[in-house]
Amino acid sequence: MNAQTPTPTTPATTSPEELDRIARLATDAAPAWAGTSPRDRARALVAAADALVADKAELVDIAMAETGLSEARLNGELTRTAVQLRLFADTIVDGEYLDVRIDEADDAFALGVRPDLRRYLIPVGPVLNFSASNFPFAFSVAGGDTAAALAAGNPVIVKAHSGHPRLSERTAAVVADALEGAGAPAGVLQLIFGQQAGVLMLKDPRIAAGSFTGSIRAGRLLADIAAARPTPIPFYGELGSVNPAFVTSAALGAGAEAIADGFVASVAGSAGQLCTKPGFLFVPTGHGLDDGLATRAAAVAEHRLLNPGIARGYGERRDSILGTAGVRVISEGALRIDEDGQGWATPTLVSVSAGDLVAHRDTLAEEAFGPLSVVVEYDDEAELAPTADALFEGNLTGTVHVGDGEDSPALRSLVGWITEHAGRVLFGGWPTGVAVTPAQQHGGPWPATTNDSSTSVGTAAISRFLRPVAYQSAPQALLPEPLRDDNPWGVPQVRAHAGESQSWGDTSR
Amino acid sequence: MNAQTPTPTTPATTSPEELDRIARLATDAAPAWAGTSPRDRARALVAAADALVADKAELVDIAMAETGLSEARLNGELTRTAVQLRLFADTIVDGEYLDVRIDEADDAFALGVRPDLRRYLIPVGPVLNFSASNFPFAFSVAGGDTAAALAAGNPVIVKAHSGHPRLSERTAAVVADALEGAGAPAGVLQLIFGQQAGVLMLKDPRIAAGSFTGSIRAGRLLADIAAARPTPIPFYGELGSVNPAFVTSAALGAGAEAIADGFVASVAGSAGQLCTKPGFLFVPTGHGLDDGLATRAAAVAEHRLLNPGIARGYGERRDSILGTAGVRVISEGALRIDEDGQGWATPTLVSVSAGDLVAHRDTLAEEAFGPLSVVVEYDDEAELAPTADALFEGNLTGTVHVGDGEDSPALRSLVGWITEHAGRVLFGGWPTGVAVTPAQQHGGPWPATTNDSSTSVGTAAISRFLRPVAYQSAPQALLPEPLRDDNPWGVPQVRAHAGESQSWGDTSR
Repeated sequence: MNAQTPTPTTPATTSPEELDRIARLATDAAPAWAGTSPRDRARALVAAADALVADKAELVDIAMAETGLSEARLNGELTRTAVQLRLFADTIVDGEYLDVRIDEADDAFALGVRPDLRRYLIPVGPVLNFSASNFPFAFSVAGGDTAAALAAGNPVIVKAHSGHPRLSERTAAVVADALEGAGAPAGVLQLIFGQQAGVLMLKDPRIAAGSFTGSIRAGRLLADIAAARPTPIPFYGELGSVNPAFVTSAALGAGAEAIADGFVASVAGSAGQLCTKPGFLFVPTGHGLDDGLATRAAAVAEHRLLNPGIARGYGERRDSILGTAGVRVISEGALRIDEDGQGWATPTLVSVSAGDLVAHRDTLAEEAFGPLSVVVEYDDEAELAPTADALFEGNLTGTVHVGDGEDSPALRSLVGWITEHAGRVLFGGWPTGVAVTPAQQHGGPWPATTNDSSTSVGTAAISRFLRPVAYQSAPQALLPEPLRDDNPWGVPQVRAHAGESQSWGDTSR
Repeated sequence: MNAQTPTPTTPATTSPEELDRIARLATDAAPAWAGTSPRDRARALVAAADALVADKAELVDIAMAETGLSEARLNGELTRTAVQLRLFADTIVDGEYLDVRIDEADDAFALGVRPDLRRYLIPVGPVLNFSASNFPFAFSVAGGDTAAALAAGNPVIVKAHSGHPRLSERTAAVVADALEGAGAPAGVLQLIFGQQAGVLMLKDPRIAAGSFTGSIRAGRLLADIAAARPTPIPFYGELGSVNPAFVTSAALGAGAEAIADGFVASVAGSAGQLCTKPGFLFVPTGHGLDDGLATRAAAVAEHRLLNPGIARGYGERRDSILGTAGVRVISEGALRIDEDGQGWATPTLVSVSAGDLVAHRDTLAEEAFGPLSVVVEYDDEAELAPTADALFEGNLTGTVHVGDGEDSPALRSLVGWITEHAGRVLFGGWPTGVAVTPAQQHGGPWPATTNDSSTSVGTAAISRFLRPVAYQSAPQALLPEPLRDDNPWGVPQVRAHAGESQSWGDTSR
């Protein structure tokens, strides 16, 4: 995903000397930022959101030129990015995220004398965030992982994506200025350029955690590096997902038109370059959707792909799928490469039987990053779960379209399979368009992510950049604010009271 | 740590065919156990606790013979293990641990229409737990990681430690019978034997997470295997820790006798074979503790070490430390190897200046697993934090003994250093004796653990064996119980209400 056409404005790869300076500055900024109260940190995040919105026109202009994404899409994405910063500000002000637990000293504790113990979550330290090509705002310099890591109290170093270097520079300048203007220490947000620089920084002992959004190949490489360091660190990579969607006969009968509308829109949006694009749509044999899908796909305007590397990769996957036995074309679509190497695509929709898909899973079941999706024809709803199990590993999402009040063992079995293999289970609707909310889960079993214990979208993401520490029998004056009895920040404190261990395991209650 | 004297009763290494059968049984048990209500799962955990207590005499007898640990210690440890199961039962019944979040559908959401989203934590799947030699109950077959993983709803496969194979077999039989008698599916707790069998099982795609307590060498090896699998899995290893303790002049002046008492008891308990043994005690030069420490150490009775391998390793570390320039003997202690290769030790206490310790850190700063500790003489409290920083990586604990009301920049700097490098910061007292409570944190930066985002003691441990999943726009009938509006299990549900996004980031509130 990192092929690029160098231009005179492409920043040089960050040198080892500069990397050292940047890591040192981040390390120096860490204690001051961690020690900033949640309220003051929230103010700085809101200032960053305001600054992004104030510079919207300029930022979107640069982004359009560098990515080929539409103005409407980029305007929406910048708004989402600003809202996300505000949401994380809102998440930290009340201090709930600190998970403060206080065990009162208890002479009658079930295991003997219990000391006073107070535990909360602290920032892990400088975070390295590898940004994505396909969301130049929302999964890039000021995107979700950056917002979560900053909100948690960590300095952030972003490895800029080569697909939008000027936008990365400008965004970093706008956000860093706003943060520092609101009292954050210098170095709380910094930028580096170049794959090799990213690898060197990931190996730097001063980096405490890594995050990444991109391909399985690059993500695995980086995850392996993080795990193999002399001091291993957590690495949260969001990689590949094919997001299967399943339509029951009842759902098809109730709304074939709406399904065709929604499916084509979800496959074609942003030229299919979304990690939640539905790559497979399972429909009953004899679905009768071909004409409706073809008409809708043919109406989609040509869209530039993000960069020449993605265009090449998409062309190869598309050729390979179109050339596989059993594959029938619903809408051939097109991929045109212009004189700059940029690809321009219209949607390609193909069809295959469930049996042929399983038989050719090595060619067909892998992600195609771009506006292509496979309509899979099945004969029996009871086969859906076992077929999916034979085809797919972990996914970000799985979707089922069911009829009103529909319920059956086959459906429950399918929902069970999706739950085990995905982070988000949708009933109706389409997986693209990921709400940034407290209950969102954007993550899933390998290879959807390198680590499915957390999310990269939504407020729960803050937990990946925190680690617990407990204080035992500490004098009040030496305790951090959230753990003190006078609770100067007013955070929620969950207390285990003396004496309560006497009733543990009393299941008669 | 795995050397052993094979005896006729040592179970054979589990064969690959048997491993396959065990993994299949665990996989088959997973859905039923995950689907068991927290209340019923809690009842099964309490039944397991009751069964352990009922068989206490027999289990402790086997443990004494296999480990050389004292009856009093083992009785206490078995009680702790049973209490731990009850505590986890208590942790899950109210369902708070499920972290249920419900976003109401919101047409006025700041980012456009928000669907109904409901997120909670589900069990990760079969867990492989490598048990430890030094806690044959509390960090072994029915120990903390097993209790946490079972409570979370996962089947558990335990790799028995070669130091107490018969105890492992008997404990597994007692606990599995009790669990199954209380309604748990067959295969919810199983046992395997042999290092190579453990490695093979860790590589099995059906294993979803690993945990381990033991040496840095073995833990790193296993963590690397877990990370390098085609499908990487989380691995929670608790490895090495030297647990430095620091005594200020004021604290020494206030209670030299109590410090000498507590320190020697903490170093000598269980022959120093505890992961939280204080390996270094920093005291002001001219502390005058030598005679008191020597007298107390000399009064400690000879104690058998866990197994011949540990005896050999301890002997080598002890010789190396005693032979290092600048090391002065306070109490030489002894290590005697009997005809069976078992080691019998009395405490060894040595002294070194802070400067010599830094100069010889390669020999001296590493963990010595056994009853040996180093008294470090320092001249200036302001040097404590930088000296510690030059010497130590991550630790499970760090302890400071301060005078009443004492406060200084040097002390704050030291507490800051400990917080950054440990999971638990103690003020007074000694790190051995780890309370099993909601606010406990037993974990810390590498090499204390392979992953410091969670704990292996206390109820917060349950989080390491869970992963989030969200349901979007699901019909009530197809939602899991904890996410339903009628909330049949009565779990806490945190709701994001429609309309509330309008005030996000309003820092004037």
